[in-house]
Amino acid sequence: MIEAWDDLIAGVKQGSVRSLARMISAVENRVAGWMEAMKLIHLDRKTAKVIGITGPPGSGKSTLTDKITSELVQEGLSIGIIAVDPSSPYSGGALLGDRLRMRDVSILPGVFVRSMATRGALGGLTWAAHDVVKILSASGKDVILIETVGVGQDEIEIVRTADLVMLVCVPGQGDAIQAIKAGVMEIADLFVVNKADLNGADRVVADIEAMLDLSSSSDCGRPPVFKTVATQSTGTRDLVAMVHSMLARRSDERSRREVRVKELLVSLLATEVARLVHEKWNRDGSLALAVEDVLRSRKDPYSIVQEVLAPVASHLK
Amino acid sequence: MIEAWDDLIAGVKQGSVRSLARMISAVENRVAGWMEAMKLIHLDRKTAKVIGITGPPGSGKSTLTDKITSELVQEGLSIGIIAVDPSSPYSGGALLGDRLRMRDVSILPGVFVRSMATRGALGGLTWAAHDVVKILSASGKDVILIETVGVGQDEIEIVRTADLVMLVCVPGQGDAIQAIKAGVMEIADLFVVNKADLNGADRVVADIEAMLDLSSSSDCGRPPVFKTVATQSTGTRDLVAMVHSMLARRSDERSRREVRVKELLVSLLATEVARLVHEKWNRDGSLALAVEDVLRSRKDPYSIVQEVLAPVASHLK
Repeated sequence: MIEAWDDLIAGVKQGSVRSLARMISAVENRVAGWMEAMKLIHLDRKTAKVIGITGPPGSGKSTLTDKITSELVQEGLSIGIIAVDPSSPYSGGALLGDRLRMRDVSILPGVFVRSMATRGALGGLTWAAHDVVKILSASGKDVILIETVGVGQDEIEIVRTADLVMLVCVPGQGDAIQAIKAGVMEIADLFVVNKADLNGADRVVADIEAMLDLSSSSDCGRPPVFKTVATQSTGTRDLVAMVHSMLARRSDERSRREVRVKELLVSLLATEVARLVHEKWNRDGSLALAVEDVLRSRKDPYSIVQEVLAPVASHLK
Repeated sequence: MIEAWDDLIAGVKQGSVRSLARMISAVENRVAGWMEAMKLIHLDRKTAKVIGITGPPGSGKSTLTDKITSELVQEGLSIGIIAVDPSSPYSGGALLGDRLRMRDVSILPGVFVRSMATRGALGGLTWAAHDVVKILSASGKDVILIETVGVGQDEIEIVRTADLVMLVCVPGQGDAIQAIKAGVMEIADLFVVNKADLNGADRVVADIEAMLDLSSSSDCGRPPVFKTVATQSTGTRDLVAMVHSMLARRSDERSRREVRVKELLVSLLATEVARLVHEKWNRDGSLALAVEDVLRSRKDPYSIVQEVLAPVASHLK
């Protein structure tokens, strides 16, 4: 067992970086008592502003995130960064985790950087990003930036719970617009065309504007489109100013909170059920037996799942 | 209720395209009786060879899939194509579904094309691709091609259950190799550098070979790397010949089947439990009440989930 949860929580609330890192790991790994600990964290009403930053690989999301972080730190704000990496299907771990060694912002005052896999180690079904947001809030972070590759469904699901979603595109990625169309366009509150010193930046802006002309207007008005060159900090100050103004305008929006709470409840419930079932199945060896039954054609998978679920299902009618 | 399951299943086994399309829709939507129907389908021992084709947007996967299909049809084989599209986070439907109107192969004899979203409509948690593979097998398809954008976790999970996984890259996508590294490299049995008439094709091949030098050799030997220009059918015949030879070599591989059965069981179980819980929660209005409780700070989400799960959890101790 790790050190007592009470000590960890106290440390987190005092802003201890060590406690923060340990508590996040313990909750990610569903160490016994994690739910009770999260209840205590939840009693703390602090709520950081959450900004989702998403876009295709190579669009410069990390650099842009770093520059936004620097701007916010200069304003005296403390920042949490959650960098979501695609998981390895075999190890369950984050594959790009080591790239974080290169991040300079992690040494800025009040900045905490955490790399997470899209799925946890427990059967590929745990998804703790919502919990990490809560923990970072309780530790006193003012703003939390969640950075994800915006293509998969898991990535979209975490980002859409943010207070503001920023979609980063770049010129010269042949299918930038195709990638955008494929599922993230609808959740973007703000578009950033990064690497805007490259050829074709204006065309990407025009393509995005054309798409926005076609789409129905959201509750929050038409999303603005910004050009940046993150490596040179060009445009990032204006971008941050716009983010502040958009966040201020929607601070009282109940509907966003409603979506977020619903998302949290459903995902907590689904992952907890799946984890319980999966753990039991692994623990008592019945998964191995079931696989053997199917391989030897003694049973079919559907009958097996029905048998396993019968006692659970009767409680849910 | 749709027409009787028995009729549908009989139609599927006789190769009726209409029955096939209807049965797949019914199973995807978890229409009452779907599990019993899948048990009957499972009694049929036919097993098609499953080939996963994955790669970043814009790599020409659809064109390559079509050319491979044409080659296989010329050999007298019947083919099922499952095109997995990223889901819309709001509608739950496949966003790119309409692109299929352009596919010429769907009029070839014995070819059945189906577009699927990464997640189903029921709370974003249903995942029926395994079932669709079974249904297509039972309808007498010899080969099933599953085509996905290879970035998200869901996409990786479906593709890794294939008998053979083909990873498609293209020159000129700045971060082709970065994208490959991020999770799909390990599951590729065969690499295709498509659009090989573009500048930089040889560099992409060299980059892949360099990565393969670094990685530990898989059970099945070093994955071959092919160059193709799918739009001109260049290299596709050799590619198909290699696929046949690789599939023949591993036809007796028990370990692949074991992984696939385990994957099917765990995903069936997890999605079924989550669906049951989610349905009950929606049906009796307790989800809306729970959201309200959290928004008004009367309860925290973790306590709510624990309460809901208590009866289920006691069965799983």
